[in-house]
Amino acid sequence: MRLLCSAAVLPAAILVSFSTCGVHAIWPLPSLYDEGRIAVEIKRSDFMIKSNVTSSSVINASIERYQYLIEHEYFESPYDFNEGAIKTSGFLFALEVNVQSAQDVYDITTDESYTLDIPIEGKAIINAATPFGAVRGLETFSQLVIANTGRKIVKNAPVKIKDAPKFAHRGILLDTSRNFYNIDSILRTLDAMAYNKLNVLHWHITDAFSWPIESKVHPELTEKGAYSTDMRYSYEDVKKVINYAKNRAIRIMPEFDTPGHTFVVGEAHPEIMSCLNKQPNWDRFTAEPPSGQLNIADPRAVSFAFDIITEYSRLFVDLGFHLGGGSLNIDCWKEDPVIELYVRDHPGESIESLVAGWYTQMTGKLEEMGKIAFMWEEAVLNYNFTAKNTTVLQAWVNDDSVSKIVDKGYRVIASPWNKYYLDCGHGSWLSNFEGSSWCDPYKNWQQIYNYNPLANITDPQKQSLVVGGEVALWSAQSDETTVDRYLWPRASAFAESMWSGNMDPATNATRDGSKIAPRLTDHRFRMVARGIMAAPLQPLWCVRHPEACLHPS
Amino acid sequence: MRLLCSAAVLPAAILVSFSTCGVHAIWPLPSLYDEGRIAVEIKRSDFMIKSNVTSSSVINASIERYQYLIEHEYFESPYDFNEGAIKTSGFLFALEVNVQSAQDVYDITTDESYTLDIPIEGKAIINAATPFGAVRGLETFSQLVIANTGRKIVKNAPVKIKDAPKFAHRGILLDTSRNFYNIDSILRTLDAMAYNKLNVLHWHITDAFSWPIESKVHPELTEKGAYSTDMRYSYEDVKKVINYAKNRAIRIMPEFDTPGHTFVVGEAHPEIMSCLNKQPNWDRFTAEPPSGQLNIADPRAVSFAFDIITEYSRLFVDLGFHLGGGSLNIDCWKEDPVIELYVRDHPGESIESLVAGWYTQMTGKLEEMGKIAFMWEEAVLNYNFTAKNTTVLQAWVNDDSVSKIVDKGYRVIASPWNKYYLDCGHGSWLSNFEGSSWCDPYKNWQQIYNYNPLANITDPQKQSLVVGGEVALWSAQSDETTVDRYLWPRASAFAESMWSGNMDPATNATRDGSKIAPRLTDHRFRMVARGIMAAPLQPLWCVRHPEACLHPS
Repeated sequence: MRLLCSAAVLPAAILVSFSTCGVHAIWPLPSLYDEGRIAVEIKRSDFMIKSNVTSSSVINASIERYQYLIEHEYFESPYDFNEGAIKTSGFLFALEVNVQSAQDVYDITTDESYTLDIPIEGKAIINAATPFGAVRGLETFSQLVIANTGRKIVKNAPVKIKDAPKFAHRGILLDTSRNFYNIDSILRTLDAMAYNKLNVLHWHITDAFSWPIESKVHPELTEKGAYSTDMRYSYEDVKKVINYAKNRAIRIMPEFDTPGHTFVVGEAHPEIMSCLNKQPNWDRFTAEPPSGQLNIADPRAVSFAFDIITEYSRLFVDLGFHLGGGSLNIDCWKEDPVIELYVRDHPGESIESLVAGWYTQMTGKLEEMGKIAFMWEEAVLNYNFTAKNTTVLQAWVNDDSVSKIVDKGYRVIASPWNKYYLDCGHGSWLSNFEGSSWCDPYKNWQQIYNYNPLANITDPQKQSLVVGGEVALWSAQSDETTVDRYLWPRASAFAESMWSGNMDPATNATRDGSKIAPRLTDHRFRMVARGIMAAPLQPLWCVRHPEACLHPS
Repeated sequence: MRLLCSAAVLPAAILVSFSTCGVHAIWPLPSLYDEGRIAVEIKRSDFMIKSNVTSSSVINASIERYQYLIEHEYFESPYDFNEGAIKTSGFLFALEVNVQSAQDVYDITTDESYTLDIPIEGKAIINAATPFGAVRGLETFSQLVIANTGRKIVKNAPVKIKDAPKFAHRGILLDTSRNFYNIDSILRTLDAMAYNKLNVLHWHITDAFSWPIESKVHPELTEKGAYSTDMRYSYEDVKKVINYAKNRAIRIMPEFDTPGHTFVVGEAHPEIMSCLNKQPNWDRFTAEPPSGQLNIADPRAVSFAFDIITEYSRLFVDLGFHLGGGSLNIDCWKEDPVIELYVRDHPGESIESLVAGWYTQMTGKLEEMGKIAFMWEEAVLNYNFTAKNTTVLQAWVNDDSVSKIVDKGYRVIASPWNKYYLDCGHGSWLSNFEGSSWCDPYKNWQQIYNYNPLANITDPQKQSLVVGGEVALWSAQSDETTVDRYLWPRASAFAESMWSGNMDPATNATRDGSKIAPRLTDHRFRMVARGIMAAPLQPLWCVRHPEACLHPS
């Protein structure tokens, strides 16, 4: 037997070192992880994954998926590429997946916990409360199975894992309006999310630039607003995405942003718009061209937004529905004659009160539809709007946005632009401007990993209001050709900080980059082997000699 | 007939505007370009490309390639996606390629000029002095052929082009040592270079990190220095790349960098190295780990470098051979006991004189092999070394490096790091460091396009010493998974500034970004249609409404 690392039952973080041990680690790290020194072989001729339930389509689809992956994946760690044949003792011939409930209902409260036991011989066992926890356990198991001289082995049995996420909402925002992403690239992104135990795709479907989704109530939006007939998501496409995601324990939360970011609505309905495509001084009316906001004083605009909420909250089955509501430009409305007249005729009303009224109406409509509202932070921080306490605010503007929101008693997801905006750092996209964009520079994986949304919040009650976070891929300079390398492996760094946290329990400090990089680069190569074109983070030599590529300070 | 743009015989730049005219432009712009208003259809059933010579393998391979492309490419400009059927009058049934010489000899002096005439009926004609000029003309012709409602048409006949490059050396440096690129990704890069009329792949094969190329003289280098048996370039691979490149009028110039950047040599030959992998304070000895330079006082190191030059200047047939020679660290040698002793025993000698002596020996050896030396600028700017005037220096350090080199009477290629280093802007790759890398931020296409290597050089004699430039993809954070997006379309911006320049003849000023972006984004979509995963530069809405996405200043 080849000597591998030994370990007591300790928080996983402590095990991670520069030794061979831990390089083949699971990403993200489980919350409790114990491993032994014995290599066991998967008995491929008859290895079976079986479950105690047969009625869960999530379980059935996941077993099929992981059975295939375990049979066909041939991933060798770049670190140990030449370690030769590892001596095994014993065989694993089955993985048993036991779930307490076969119910496939999945929302923000769903239990994703699981345990995984891999013995040195016989049958591995996953126990989970729900099918969705079982999916997490299957992913973990698949990462422990590595290729070695033609065989599939688990290198470090016995393994005992007890795992559950630190944050309930671990998402990626994907903007499909600035540029289009075909369905294949969205499905591939869902695959990669599952490899990282992320659980929410925040689908920022529409924005000022295009309206790529079919509407049965307002087909003119897609007719005039989709980039082309090829660049559309049909109802069938959306259902396919939702189902594909659910089988990977991922929720699809749509965003239909109003009243701002709506220039494209004006292509079909200029009559309900304010400041439509003001040129050339668009910067007075919007942060980026083309300008245009729904006319919040016009009952037809309200009615239009109600239609959108009603239609799409039926199509998207998830409880969460994002109403947008951020980045409003008051000047856009100041010069609108309809709004000017309205404010003059309604003493006590102002543009700000109209905005608050808009939010009240939209959240009310959404509540009628039985949904939970998600909104950008401005709704409660910039306007005198009081949301229901079920509302989840998305913080992005300032370092203290998260704490300000929990101070008001709301739930929050963290998406600080200066940490989590993955599109930044490629300079301006205006044609005649050599300078940087507003959100340069590039956010590298260390910055992302090191951010802790709970920092500066000490009250446990308030901490519990921080339900998670989202990294964001705004798509002015990204589309289906670039999505993999923009997201991965930086979104993996985010994923671990959301799943088991970025703190090293041994030191109670943020985990050191030198401990993270060997595992993260290993995971990056695993993703590449699984078909995700994740970017390399450093020379392969450094992947193999992590102790030699550190900052000398 | 559908009304298209009209044009007199004018420099092409003047034609480019926001109208439909010019959006379907050729990239890079030809030096002289005249087009009409008549759309003609390619008679696909019997359209043939024929040449007056049959003995040129370059011509034969290129005709086959473009015949296929013209038959099978189905590119519709994103700008005109819904313009409907264009009425054509007349057919093109052939393209005749006339070359004065069938000789396939290709070097930095080769004539790449061509003319292209596309009539409104009948036969298009390319005239070129050499097969390599003909290849450029074929690329231009292929870009003028667009898809329209199932047909292939030239939209704007008659077309008259008289074209030749402004700079003779228009290159991309690709570093295959920090990370590996498989042969497919290198061939794909050559395809893309041909689409942009670039003509030199500067193959920075080895560096400190890995030695991916087969050596028949020193097989131990590859044995110990390649990342794995899969990550190697055999002699056959190299010959395939050279041949593939030649058929696209691209030269392969290898670089074997000495005496610095040679840590990997120490894996097999520690006895000829200085400061090998000093840790943890590597920064005293190198700009990035791992440290290591050939011991320039050791005759065995000289002999080793001679072996390398001899072996690889035979394998790589191009006249140009890059000796490296940049980024030397004097401290690395100061503490080396062998060098200390040598300097003590040789009055008048110093480390600096040893470096100059190294350069003298290497350039001498290369001259024996019948090659032209390329070297990094430090050789003549930092050390008291006088090169042969055939030597070409590669400028990269300072804004005035180009003019300093031509002031010394040497030829130069421009690769300013703050404009042309395409890898920059992704933060540090050291595992435990959150900060930026030395060369952040990202260089966006405007910066690249706007750089003119002739700026501040007024003497025409000195201007003629500026033979071209190279954008560089150093690969600490890039490999075969990311190469397309790192290079394209930013290397396209470089390509036009090298081919026909970045000046607008109408204003005699650097061409405005608003005039470039519509053509560059169009070209980007063409590259995507041809299988190059070039990154998008802006929302597709802006591609279609270029006048609406300008800086408001």
